[in-house]
Amino acid sequence: MLYSTDPRSGRRTAVDIEPTSDDEVAATLERATAAAHVLRSEPRAWRSHLLRSLADALTRRGEELVSAALAETGLTRSRLEGEVARAAGQFRLFADVVDEGSYLEAAIDHAVESPSGRAPEIRRMLVPLGPVAVFGSSNFPFAFSVAGGDTASALAAGNPVILKAHSSHIEVSRLSFEILDAAARSAGAPPGTLEIVYGQEAGRALVAHPAVRAVGFTGSQSTAEALLEVIRGRAEPIPFYGELSSLNPLIVSAQAAVARSTQIAEGLIQSVLGSSGQLCTKPGLLFVPGAATELVDALVAAVSREGSHVLLNDRIATSYREISGRLVDAGAETAARGSGPETEFSVNPALLVIPAHDFTSEVAEEVFGPLAVIVRYRDVSEIPPALDAVPGSLTATIHSEPQEQDFRAAVVDAIEDRVGRIVFNGYPTGVRVSWAQHHGGPWPATNTQHTSVGATAIRRFLRPLAWQDAPEDVLPTELRNDSDVPRRIDGALILAGASTAQGR
Amino acid sequence: MLYSTDPRSGRRTAVDIEPTSDDEVAATLERATAAAHVLRSEPRAWRSHLLRSLADALTRRGEELVSAALAETGLTRSRLEGEVARAAGQFRLFADVVDEGSYLEAAIDHAVESPSGRAPEIRRMLVPLGPVAVFGSSNFPFAFSVAGGDTASALAAGNPVILKAHSSHIEVSRLSFEILDAAARSAGAPPGTLEIVYGQEAGRALVAHPAVRAVGFTGSQSTAEALLEVIRGRAEPIPFYGELSSLNPLIVSAQAAVARSTQIAEGLIQSVLGSSGQLCTKPGLLFVPGAATELVDALVAAVSREGSHVLLNDRIATSYREISGRLVDAGAETAARGSGPETEFSVNPALLVIPAHDFTSEVAEEVFGPLAVIVRYRDVSEIPPALDAVPGSLTATIHSEPQEQDFRAAVVDAIEDRVGRIVFNGYPTGVRVSWAQHHGGPWPATNTQHTSVGATAIRRFLRPLAWQDAPEDVLPTELRNDSDVPRRIDGALILAGASTAQGR
Repeated sequence: MLYSTDPRSGRRTAVDIEPTSDDEVAATLERATAAAHVLRSEPRAWRSHLLRSLADALTRRGEELVSAALAETGLTRSRLEGEVARAAGQFRLFADVVDEGSYLEAAIDHAVESPSGRAPEIRRMLVPLGPVAVFGSSNFPFAFSVAGGDTASALAAGNPVILKAHSSHIEVSRLSFEILDAAARSAGAPPGTLEIVYGQEAGRALVAHPAVRAVGFTGSQSTAEALLEVIRGRAEPIPFYGELSSLNPLIVSAQAAVARSTQIAEGLIQSVLGSSGQLCTKPGLLFVPGAATELVDALVAAVSREGSHVLLNDRIATSYREISGRLVDAGAETAARGSGPETEFSVNPALLVIPAHDFTSEVAEEVFGPLAVIVRYRDVSEIPPALDAVPGSLTATIHSEPQEQDFRAAVVDAIEDRVGRIVFNGYPTGVRVSWAQHHGGPWPATNTQHTSVGATAIRRFLRPLAWQDAPEDVLPTELRNDSDVPRRIDGALILAGASTAQGR
Repeated sequence: MLYSTDPRSGRRTAVDIEPTSDDEVAATLERATAAAHVLRSEPRAWRSHLLRSLADALTRRGEELVSAALAETGLTRSRLEGEVARAAGQFRLFADVVDEGSYLEAAIDHAVESPSGRAPEIRRMLVPLGPVAVFGSSNFPFAFSVAGGDTASALAAGNPVILKAHSSHIEVSRLSFEILDAAARSAGAPPGTLEIVYGQEAGRALVAHPAVRAVGFTGSQSTAEALLEVIRGRAEPIPFYGELSSLNPLIVSAQAAVARSTQIAEGLIQSVLGSSGQLCTKPGLLFVPGAATELVDALVAAVSREGSHVLLNDRIATSYREISGRLVDAGAETAARGSGPETEFSVNPALLVIPAHDFTSEVAEEVFGPLAVIVRYRDVSEIPPALDAVPGSLTATIHSEPQEQDFRAAVVDAIEDRVGRIVFNGYPTGVRVSWAQHHGGPWPATNTQHTSVGATAIRRFLRPLAWQDAPEDVLPTELRNDSDVPRRIDGALILAGASTAQGR
């Protein structure tokens, strides 16, 4: 039996959905495999139209989606409304990416006669992998779930997508799927283009199924490990793109702490407490100078004023209590704490503090929820060794004043190997979905060199294929002599429309 | 004790090299880690100069390299001379790739004010991973070993490279390293830019070392599995780029078999027996029409005339005998066999044959060496089910006549999900090293969506990094407003030199 739970009331309701059986998972993959064949033969314009149709459907039925999520996630209406817009925007971005076409990395090397013989003509571009399984996260019921970026990018690449409904928002998953599936059918997509499975066992069966060609995953390291174990049992390995964990250190310089203490305190409070701190980019470690009493006092005052926050589910609330307890055991002191009533689903925000010279890897554990650890440094030289104890993160943030070039350079030098994005004088939360974005980072932030947000996320679900001395009739349109995509011709990048691929 | 063996004479000579100890591996990684820091701060022009210096050194000392390889590999002089030229050419190609700069995937999204708030400026490009371990193959002592493509591409990306000397050509490995290392020092590269370790245990210690950020590997599936097991034991997973195994089916149409029987037979004999069949792209499965007696007769006659071939080492000769025996047990008949004297290191070429309707996955096992299996089909409809039994390959080849469009389309449809390159009316051996090349394929051809040959091989050793609202002083030169590389600005691809990154 599957359940939907409202974390605000704690009410648990049985839903009218059966866990997907192994046979149904197999049937799902049969449809998806058939769809893969159709999708790859359709032109790019067909696919970008499909993606825009899905975006329109999400926008059109946004109110239904928000209502369902209000009842299942504990998140606020404005946050959820913003997230539906972001999810729709992601489908639109990937439609643009497909239309633009350079994601295909199309390249042509013409044949060359040389003293050592003829070098053949080679044409190369990226092609879809085949059916992709997507496991969304609890904390983004839209933008990183059924209607999320993994779905949009895998589909944009030309792959069918099989979704695993998230147990923490099962009704939202079902409704999102219903909306996307209906829109896809209306746009002429074949059956199997989008599929969904329910239940943990079905998720494992999905990852184990030989027809699945890749997995997109956003969630905990422990669940990722369990799925990677399933992948190790497969006859053929497949890529697993996991976005797992992140502490997101934020470092404030001495001068910035003086010049902008109020502004930084306000920004930090919003970034740490927004969405009740349940964001993978929440700044969890705040390096502030020992002298920055004004900044710390403002943070302490703000957190002390807070009431309790309802979290996404009881597991997250339990972890929050457990891990924050471990940090205190490891030497962090409680600087501030909210004072609301706590339930199985709600916790009080907290601010811990520790001197940089006492900071160890034991204090460098992610607490998912409204908590940050202040690391007070006396001297800049204390920062690099402390950062060394921080595991790979999605982001790092540096606040400094324009003239503090040496400080910036030293901190960037200490952190650049350990993160995927460096933010200056801002906050890491509120990830922009755009062409240049990178949302990934060294282990355990992610387990690959890829992004799960932004245009280049599409690369995860593609592989290169080369054609040697191919007659035009077997070539994809993008590799024929006339083409509408940017290409590399004999090593030189040529923009779309420039006609230089003619035989020579 | 380490040995150098001449497979022509079978003579085994102790070499004056100790297996690298764990402590020495650790010291190696300490130097490489320091070098990583220096390499990443040098401009691209410095690195392309370094790569060209290495190419020049290989060319200059080519005769020494060829002599060493003649004494250790059993390969012919002309093959080895060609391979040194290819190895040098690979360093030059990557120098061009570095100069051109679009491999950085540089992108800038300017800040945008919108009703939902300000979207920050994001600048993104690829940065080096850090120290890379490279395990070369036995069959390419230059182009896929110490002086090979993995070394060139990892170094081009800005990473130090730690080489594992191949036990099958240990003197060639030492000499190649000595030449490259001296050239790198002369070009001003810091100590640790190139390092080498000797012995199987050192190889394992290398892969286990926390400072190693990626592994490039060309070799057997079993060795790859052993190294992947080491990676699973690491605290942080790292990418392992393995090129492992390939059967390379080649399909001849009815009309091509009639129109070009002599030409195809000659091409096939050269492709199957060249380098004694010890090429990862050797066409191992030849699908020919049942009526193509002329083509088959020509192949049988040519193989029967052959003497025995000296292979690279005794392990390969033993495997050759074992696996070809297994194929016969699985139902393949011996159609032809060379008749030279065999030794521990040499074998006779062979041609096996099986009807397509009897073809099973048991006959679809790679035999490394001068052997091919002819699969005779009565009707085109027999081809797809037989291809279904073939594991993922680097290549497939189709011979057809211009008017046989339906035949081509059907075979491409059956094979395109299973290979990385499709060759038309040619042969898969003799891989062109160029911008558009792809040398990779679905498992077990490789274990990732990447190529190990051609310009895009560099992508394996890079990861994205994004800068948000960064002051110019912390940005890499390629991401500053004036830049000499092609970039994507607000979604539009802009060629180098076009000045459009100015703030707006």
